[in-house]
Amino acid sequence: MNNKIIRLGHGAGGILTNQLIKTIVLKYFTNTTLRRLEDSAELNVKKNNIAFTTDSYVIDPIFFPGSDIGSLAIYGTVNDLAMKGAIPKFISLSLIIEEGFSIEKLKKILKSASQAAHRAGVSVVCGDTKVVERGKADKIFITTSGIGIIKLHLGKEKIQIGDHIIVSGTIGDHGIAVMNERLQLGLKSTIRSDAAPLNVITTKLFHHTSAIHFMRDPTRGGIASVLNEIVDGTTKGIMIYERDLPIRREVRGACEILGLDPLYVANEGKFVALVDRKSASTLLKKIRNQPLGRNAKIIGEVISEPKGVWLKTKIGGTHPLLQLEAEGLPRIC
Amino acid sequence: MNNKIIRLGHGAGGILTNQLIKTIVLKYFTNTTLRRLEDSAELNVKKNNIAFTTDSYVIDPIFFPGSDIGSLAIYGTVNDLAMKGAIPKFISLSLIIEEGFSIEKLKKILKSASQAAHRAGVSVVCGDTKVVERGKADKIFITTSGIGIIKLHLGKEKIQIGDHIIVSGTIGDHGIAVMNERLQLGLKSTIRSDAAPLNVITTKLFHHTSAIHFMRDPTRGGIASVLNEIVDGTTKGIMIYERDLPIRREVRGACEILGLDPLYVANEGKFVALVDRKSASTLLKKIRNQPLGRNAKIIGEVISEPKGVWLKTKIGGTHPLLQLEAEGLPRIC
Repeated sequence: MNNKIIRLGHGAGGILTNQLIKTIVLKYFTNTTLRRLEDSAELNVKKNNIAFTTDSYVIDPIFFPGSDIGSLAIYGTVNDLAMKGAIPKFISLSLIIEEGFSIEKLKKILKSASQAAHRAGVSVVCGDTKVVERGKADKIFITTSGIGIIKLHLGKEKIQIGDHIIVSGTIGDHGIAVMNERLQLGLKSTIRSDAAPLNVITTKLFHHTSAIHFMRDPTRGGIASVLNEIVDGTTKGIMIYERDLPIRREVRGACEILGLDPLYVANEGKFVALVDRKSASTLLKKIRNQPLGRNAKIIGEVISEPKGVWLKTKIGGTHPLLQLEAEGLPRIC
Repeated sequence: MNNKIIRLGHGAGGILTNQLIKTIVLKYFTNTTLRRLEDSAELNVKKNNIAFTTDSYVIDPIFFPGSDIGSLAIYGTVNDLAMKGAIPKFISLSLIIEEGFSIEKLKKILKSASQAAHRAGVSVVCGDTKVVERGKADKIFITTSGIGIIKLHLGKEKIQIGDHIIVSGTIGDHGIAVMNERLQLGLKSTIRSDAAPLNVITTKLFHHTSAIHFMRDPTRGGIASVLNEIVDGTTKGIMIYERDLPIRREVRGACEILGLDPLYVANEGKFVALVDRKSASTLLKKIRNQPLGRNAKIIGEVISEPKGVWLKTKIGGTHPLLQLEAEGLPRIC
């Protein structure tokens, strides 16, 4: 194994990505905000705490059922802010375009991003455009950054043993929709990306100040990877119940054909929330009252032992949900 | 001319870039902040106004005399904030890396970015890493966004006829250093990129609340393009005096060989300030007191007639400095 070059897995959101960030990136940039390795930075601007986040989108293909790179770039960044307990407000949008890219497609992407921003209630307030020679980039890459006003202070340190884990809807839709399009699998299905603005739901939960302990959106690497990141560095474990996982029949079928575990497949419009067990059913009801959250379920809980992330299967067995070295789906966002 | 595809000039910072932004991007994203088309957005977060900016860096080559893509990505964003009268505070850093890129080079770039952040007094607080397949990107692209606290309220509406124009040092150094390296011109010279954090100078000027009217850093497209952007949409003109332009002898020589006008060559550590004429010499002195500003000069003034940007040559002629359709140096930042 050549450790001197970048591999696709370094960008896949698994162990390799984690290693790259911890052993290389954090070596050069050390501040307490960045070291938390959360998706958004919490910044104190005098009296108002703001959340600040960034993501680059290199998804292939750029158009896919249910969304495209434009709206994805807005929702992805909006969702990172929402997960931080913030109201997303301002977005920056920077384009790297390959020479020869179709202006018509650019318009389509920008229109889609614009509609997404409108739906999420954010303003795109600054941007940049760079063009590189033909063959030096793949069609278009978009980097968005976002600023939000923090309303709810969340953190791993708030997670308690016994907390219930809510997922806001069906899992794996985005990854399977993109794979179906990319590989031209021709799966006869209605599977569409779930790309959507999560702040539409989370903003309704903000008055439950102490009941919500932590939130994350399971994008690259899916639910299993995100849950692993959540327990990483804590002394707690997580148990997930297979029978409670909301998975569309078509997604389950596609995963079987492709040999994928839906727990590791990317989502772009779902979140997991770790909440106080006493408030869990109230919160679940509020989430299900929103169209985007109507399939929400309680899927598991925080446990003291064993450490790590575990799946209780339908037939009663228990097996570990390990963090993958590099997930099998590059360029999924 | 094919108007349906993206051309390199669309990313070059001239008329084509301007058209792309005005006719396509602004069509989909309309808010008063973005419409100002300044390099940073001014955001009101309750009582504190913050500046927010983003830029993607696709420079080729990634290492060049005086700097590299890492420090450039920090300084470029820091400088956009400084030009907005802000104290740069927080930076996001997002990487798009080509599969197979050398980890050693990545470390070198991150180290350089880290040192640049230290020098500029900013913290890199969030980031992202994506990897694309070999041949789908050119080594590494970096997108940074930045947040700063606004201390000085600047705007085109403050520009007055008679304002003096200060440039903070020699022009064209960055563009020529990069071209020399990229084209392996082998010009025997000591030309290095001027990439540097301008907030080191501008922060010292912030108590001159009413004397500074507008600032911009002349990056892509150089001084001439930036001055055109400044008068665009106003009823004023600008006259520049050739005899007062600070240009290194080696840069002038290289421009002659390459057939370039130094007024259109990119800088990464210089600014132009439009200031009240009565305060101009005081401000000039303060700028020259800083090591980064020791070659600063007053190079021109704002005039009522004729509109547009003009150069008074050494031999007394006057000729227009037009905005170029697309500058000749792609991927200069």
